This record gives sequence, structure tokens and C-alpha cells, in this order.
Amino acid sequence: MDLDKYMTEKKLVIEAALERFLPPADASSARLHESMRYSVFAGGKRLRPILCIAAVEALGKDPAPCLPAACALELVHTYSLIHDDLPAMDNDDLRRGKPTNHKVFGEAVAILAGDALLTLAFELVAGIDAPAAARVDMVRMLARCGGTEGLVGGQALDLSSEGKQVSEATLERIHARKTAALIETAIMFGAVCGGASPGQSDCFSAYGHALGMAFQITDDILDATGHQEKMGKRTRRDADAGKATYPARYGVDASRRFAAGYVTRAVGALAGFDERAWVLREIARPLATRDR
Amino acid sequence: MDLDKYMTEKKLVIEAALERFLPPADASSARLHESMRYSVFAGGKRLRPILCIAAVEALGKDPAPCLPAACALELVHTYSLIHDDLPAMDNDDLRRGKPTNHKVFGEAVAILAGDALLTLAFELVAGIDAPAAARVDMVRMLARCGGTEGLVGGQALDLSSEGKQVSEATLERIHARKTAALIETAIMFGAVCGGASPGQSDCFSAYGHALGMAFQITDDILDATGHQEKMGKRTRRDADAGKATYPARYGVDASRRFAAGYVTRAVGALAGFDERAWVLREIARPLATRDR
Repeated sequence: MDLDKYMTEKKLVIEAALERFLPPADASSARLHESMRYSVFAGGKRLRPILCIAAVEALGKDPAPCLPAACALELVHTYSLIHDDLPAMDNDDLRRGKPTNHKVFGEAVAILAGDALLTLAFELVAGIDAPAAARVDMVRMLARCGGTEGLVGGQALDLSSEGKQVSEATLERIHARKTAALIETAIMFGAVCGGASPGQSDCFSAYGHALGMAFQITDDILDATGHQEKMGKRTRRDADAGKATYPARYGVDASRRFAAGYVTRAVGALAGFDERAWVLREIARPLATRDR
Repeated sequence: MDLDKYMTEKKLVIEAALERFLPPADASSARLHESMRYSVFAGGKRLRPILCIAAVEALGKDPAPCLPAACALELVHTYSLIHDDLPAMDNDDLRRGKPTNHKVFGEAVAILAGDALLTLAFELVAGIDAPAAARVDMVRMLARCGGTEGLVGGQALDLSSEGKQVSEATLERIHARKTAALIETAIMFGAVCGGASPGQSDCFSAYGHALGMAFQITDDILDATGHQEKMGKRTRRDADAGKATYPARYGVDASRRFAAGYVTRAVGALAGFDERAWVLREIARPLATRDR
């Protein structure tokens, strides 16, 4: 099977599951539920759930019981985008080619939709069909990667670094928290669900971190060089906002080399895995030359 | 021991624990951490953690291992206040006699501080010294009471009901979700940590729901009749905003009767418990005549 076919198939499975897990548009909280669904079904690539599933498969296990946890990753990702897009934060009007949540539902509902998606994510992870100890581990992983040392801390650092010349360490820390942490958690969810050995977990962790860094750097390169129509969101926002990015600090060519270096490290971390890790390898490789 | 002395002693224990659990004001996320601490240490009564501890004690068990979970309830309560006070929501400038979080730290940091407190709450609950199955149960309880059927759904319904004549059922649903759900969860955390039997859990659940409803109704009565200096926040906000409240729908006297009825039900639910449930009984009784 080729990667595109795999991604398309898994995307359908994940979206059917998200449909089941999200609350219906009922009478009492119709706008809130609509708002949650609007952003979750706004056309995401489902990278994080797919990585989780692919990691379980790389260990030769059935990913089906892990599906709610995989979806929880997408909910956390979506919540972080809704809150980051708010006027008080990055003030973005466009996301994946559509008006951002608060443009459609207003700020109050957008804030609440984000809160509700984050909360639902923990409910889904705690409810999967796995031993309680594994579920507790995953709740703790998700909380750590979402909190002050992860997504929230990264966004706070990103906002407070706007318009400043930041150190290499700060730049890496922003990217590690804002993007790499959740991608690494996706892989580690797969490790827990697939019963990885401690050694395998370490390799997955190294893979997830490197992949996440490569992903964020290429995202920043695209923002600096890409076309709005291709990206489905306003480009060159980072430069306008004085954001701390690799292209801003090192230029586009050096940033491409950074990304390629992380891809090499990601693929290298999988050296001990057999051909069942093919999806994890194939997802990483194009990031060195990604253009959408 | 009298109730005031008990509350004062437990408050100190809880605040020392919160101090340990909250992230330090370090260099990289100083504003975010300060903002979290500002609202957590803004002078709350710690009602929810105290209820959790008192419920464990009513079962004759040591509440110490449950302390992080008790603190998690306070973090969720604080997160919901920070987000509810935002300009896009209730637009409140004053809370417990101090400027609200966004007035001090700005909206972006206030939103992130709320997100971080909610996330940290799940980390604390998942990390307590209890069997994994109990921890998973508590994570699921917290997620349900925080989500679309609880805090977030209640706030969405509250906002969408502003300026409208709502039905008795809608009014009760708003209060049940916005306030009673988290208070009931506090008691149920105590039930789980204290190893309550199914019968005891049912009694605790009934007590928690009735106490929460009484608490919210008396809060609304105070908003309608109280003095700003005594309350530490702007009063008569509800009427100005056209909020759905018991006093607005039934008048103050009938609302007092509703509150007293809930107090009777709360105390009645504890009939099968011995004198170790004294705190739970004593906390409920003054709500029929609460004036601050």
C-alpha cells in the first residue's frame, strides 16, 4: 500500500470515530456543539491520530481499541488551534481555508468550544478499552504535553517572544512545546496501546520529538514562502507578527537543512523496527521537501 | 471542633498543597505561571477541596492521599472563573475584591492560564496515590462534570439564556451544570478516595447535587440583594445582564424557600452516616440563611 492510500483510509476511520465521540447538535447546547464540530471537521489531515495508529501497527498490534485515544489527540490539537486563533492571541481569521471558529460562532462560544474539546479529550483517553494503569499513564502524558511544559507554555512563550530576537534555545523550546510535544505524545500513545518495551518506547519518543520538530520547521518555512491558496490560511503571518521562527532566525535554506536533519534523526530512531514501521518512516521523509 | 475552625485549618493545608502543585514563576513562562497563581491565590474559600476531604473523613478514612485530587477541584473551579470573567463572556472586572485575571495579565494570558489550570487538574488527579482504577474513575468524573454536560455546557446555556424568560427546567439545568456538578464531583472524589460502598456513593451523590443547587441559589440571592463590599465583586450583575436566576424568575423569598428545600434534602441524604459526617451537615445548614 502507498502512503496516500493509507492516510486516506485511516482518515475515514478516524472521522467516523470523531463523529461518534462528539456531542450531537442538541437543543440545549446547539451552538456549543456546532462550534466544536465546525473546527473538528474543518478538514484537518488527522496527522496525530494517524501517527498513534501507525505506532500501534509498527508494534504488530490491533489499533482499534486505541481509536478513542487517537481521536483525543485530534481534539487537543483542535482546541489549541481555536484558542490560538482568538483575537487576543494570534488574531487569525482564516484556518484551513475557512473562517476561524470565533469568526463564525463569536469569541465566547469559541473559548468554550476549546475548553470542551480539551475536557472531552481526557474523558476519551480515560475511557479506552485498556488496563487502568495504561489509561492513567496516557492521561498523565496528555496533561503534561498540554500544560505549562507543553502546548500552553509554548503558546505563552511564543506570544511573549513576538518582536524579539530570541536565542536558539528559546526558539527550540517554543517549537518543542507548541508542536513536537503533542506529536511525540501521539507516538507514545501508540507505544502504550501497543505494549512497547522500554527500549522501543525510547526509540518512539526520539522519533516523535524529531518528527514534531521537522513538522513545525517546515510549517514555518511554508508560512514564509507558501501561497495562501495552497495553504488555506493567511501566509507570512509569522513575519508580520514578528514571530520567533527558524526562517526568521536562520533564513529559509538553513531552516530546510534543520528540518532535513530532524527527518534523518526521526528515521534513524526507527532502525530497530521491521517493515511494519513503514508508515512512520514514510510520513517523516517528505517533510524535508514539504510544500503543503 | 466548630466548623469555622475546621475550615480555617483545612484551608491552610489545601493552600500549602496548591503552592506545591502549581508551577513556579520561572524565567521562561513567568507571566503564565504568575497569572495561574494570581487567581488560585485570590482568596477562595476552598469549598470544593474541603468538601472532598470532609467526605473522605465522613467515611472514616485518611484524606491525605486524596489531597492532589482535592486541589484539582479548586483548579477547575478557578479556570472556570477566569474564563467566565473574560470580556467575551461575563465581562467582569472584579472577583473576590481584586481585579479579574485578564485585567491584570491581559486576555491572552488569562485564556492560557485557564487552559493550563484545567490541564494541570487532570494531571493531579491521574497522579494521586490510589489504585489506577480509582484514578481513571476520577478522571472520567472530572471530565464529565467539566464538559458539555457540566461547567462548559452550563456556561454556554447561561450565555444563550441572557435576556430571555427561561423555563424552570432550563434554569435548573444551568445551575446543575454550572455549580452543582463540580460540587457533586468534589463529594464523589471523596467517595472514591474513601472507598464508599455503592449505597454510600448514592447518598453522597444526592447530598452533593442538593448542596450545589442550594449554593448556587444563595449565590444568586446574594447577587440580587448583597453589598459589593461584603461580596468582593460587583453585585446586581445578574439583573443587569438579564441572567437566568432563581431570584429573577421567582423572587427572593421563593428563592430562599428553594434553597432551604435543597438544604433539607442535602442533610437528609446523610441520614445513614454517623457523627463523622458532621462537617458535611454543618456546611449545608447555613446556606438556608447565607449572607456572604
